Amino acid sequence: MSHQENQQLIQTLHECIAACNHCFDACLQEDNVKMMADCIKLDRECADICAFFEQALSRNTKYKKELAQLCAQVCEDCAAECEKHEHDHCKECAEACRKCAEACKQVA
Amino acid sequence: MSHQENQQLIQTLHECIAACNHCFDACLQEDNVKMMADCIKLDRECADICAFFEQALSRNTKYKKELAQLCAQVCEDCAAECEKHEHDHCKECAEACRKCAEACKQVA
Amino acid sequence: MSHQENQQLIQTLHECIAACNHCFDACLQEDNVKMMADCIKLDRECADICAFFEQALSRNTKYKKELAQLCAQVCEDCAAECEKHEHDHCKECAEACRKCAEACKQVA
Amino acid sequence: MSHQENQQLIQTLHECIAACNHCFDACLQEDNVKMMADCIKLDRECADICAFFEQALSRNTKYKKELAQLCAQVCEDCAAECEKHEHDHCKECAEACRKCAEACKQVA
Repeated sequence: MSHQENQQLIQTLHECIAACNHCFDACLQEDNVKMMADCIKLDRECADICAFFEQALSRNTKYKKELAQLCAQVCEDCAAECEKHEHDHCKECAEACRKCAEACKQVA
Repeated sequence: MSHQENQQLIQTLHECIAACNHCFDACLQEDNVKMMADCIKLDRECADICAFFEQALSRNTKYKKELAQLCAQVCEDCAAECEKHEHDHCKECAEACRKCAEACKQVA
Repeated sequence: MSHQENQQLIQTLHECIAACNHCFDACLQEDNVKMMADCIKLDRECADICAFFEQALSRNTKYKKELAQLCAQVCEDCAAECEKHEHDHCKECAEACRKCAEACKQVA
Repeated sequence: MSHQENQQLIQTLHECIAACNHCFDACLQEDNVKMMADCIKLDRECADICAFFEQALSRNTKYKKELAQLCAQVCEDCAAECEKHEHDHCKECAEACRKCAEACKQVA
C-alpha cells in the first residue's frame, strides 16, 4: 500500500470516529434513549477500534491487515444498527461506517 | 513515589475501570435508560481517562501529577453522578470511583 | 465464558501490559538501544492492543473472539522478539506475553 | 467554542498525532537510536494524549480545558526534544507539536 493510500485510509477512519462519537453523544440526548442502547454501545465500540487502527497505521504497524479486517466488521455492525434509526446523526454515522468498512476491506 | 505505591495505584485504577465499564454496560440494559444518560457518558469518560493513566503509569510517564489531578476530578464527577442512582452497579461504581479519586489526589 | 474466566483473562492482560510497558521504558535506557528497536516497537504494539482488549472485555464487547485472536498473535510476536535478548525486563516480558497468548488462544 | 473551532482543533491534533507516530517509527530506524531515546518516549506520550483528546473532543467531553492544558504541556515538551535533532521527521514533528500546543493553549 502506498503512503498516499495509507493517508486516505487514515482520513476515512478519522471521519468514521467523528461520526460515531457524535452519534454516541447525540443518542444519549434523544427522548427515547432506550431504543438507542445498542447504537450507543456500538458507537463506542466502533469509535474505539477505528481510533486504535488510526494510531496503529500512523506508527506503521505490521498488523494492518488484521486490524483492517476487525475494523471492517465493527463498522458494518455499527452501520447496520444505525440504519435502523431515523435520526440524522444515525444516518450520517451509518454512511461514515459503510465508507470506512469498504476502505478497510480493501486493505484486509 | 515508591514502586510499591505505583503498583497500588495501578491496581486501584484497574478496579475503577472495571467498575465504570460494567456500569456503562449495565446502564444500557436498564428499563429507564434515559435517566442513566449522564451516568453512561461519565462512565465512558472515567474508564477512558483511568485506562490512559494506568498505561502511562506503567511506562513511567513524567506527567503523573497532571494525569492524577485530571483523573481525580473525573472520578469524583462520575461518583457524584452514580450516587444519584439506586442500581447496584452504580453504587459499586461510585465506591470504586471515590477510592480511585482519593488515591489519585495523594499523587497529584 | 463464565464471569470468573473473564476476570482471569483481564488479570492476565493487565500483567502483560505492565510487563510490556516496563520493557519499553527499560529498553530505552539500555546502552545498546539500537539492538532493542524491534523490541521497543513490539512492546508498544502489544501493550496497546492488550489494553484495548482489557477495556473491551470489561464493557462486555461482542468482539471477544476476534480481539483474543489478534492479541494472541501480537503477544507471540512480542515474546519471540523479547526472547532474543538477555535483559531481565525482556525475559519477564516474554514470559508475560507467552502466558497472555495462551490465555487469549483459549478464548479465540 | 464554536463547532467550527472544534473541528479545527481536532484536525490540528490529528496532524500532531501523525507527525509524532511517524517520528517514533523513524527514530527507531535511525543509526544512533540511543540519541533518540527521549524523543521516542515523548513521541509516544504526545501521540497518545493527543489521540485521547481528539476522541474526547469528538464525543463532546466536559473536560476540554483540562485536557487542552495537559496536551499543550506534552506537545511543548515533545517539540523541545525534537528541536534538538536534525532529522527531517524530528523537525516536522516539532513543528506539528508547536502548532498543536498553540491551538491547545487557546482552549485551555
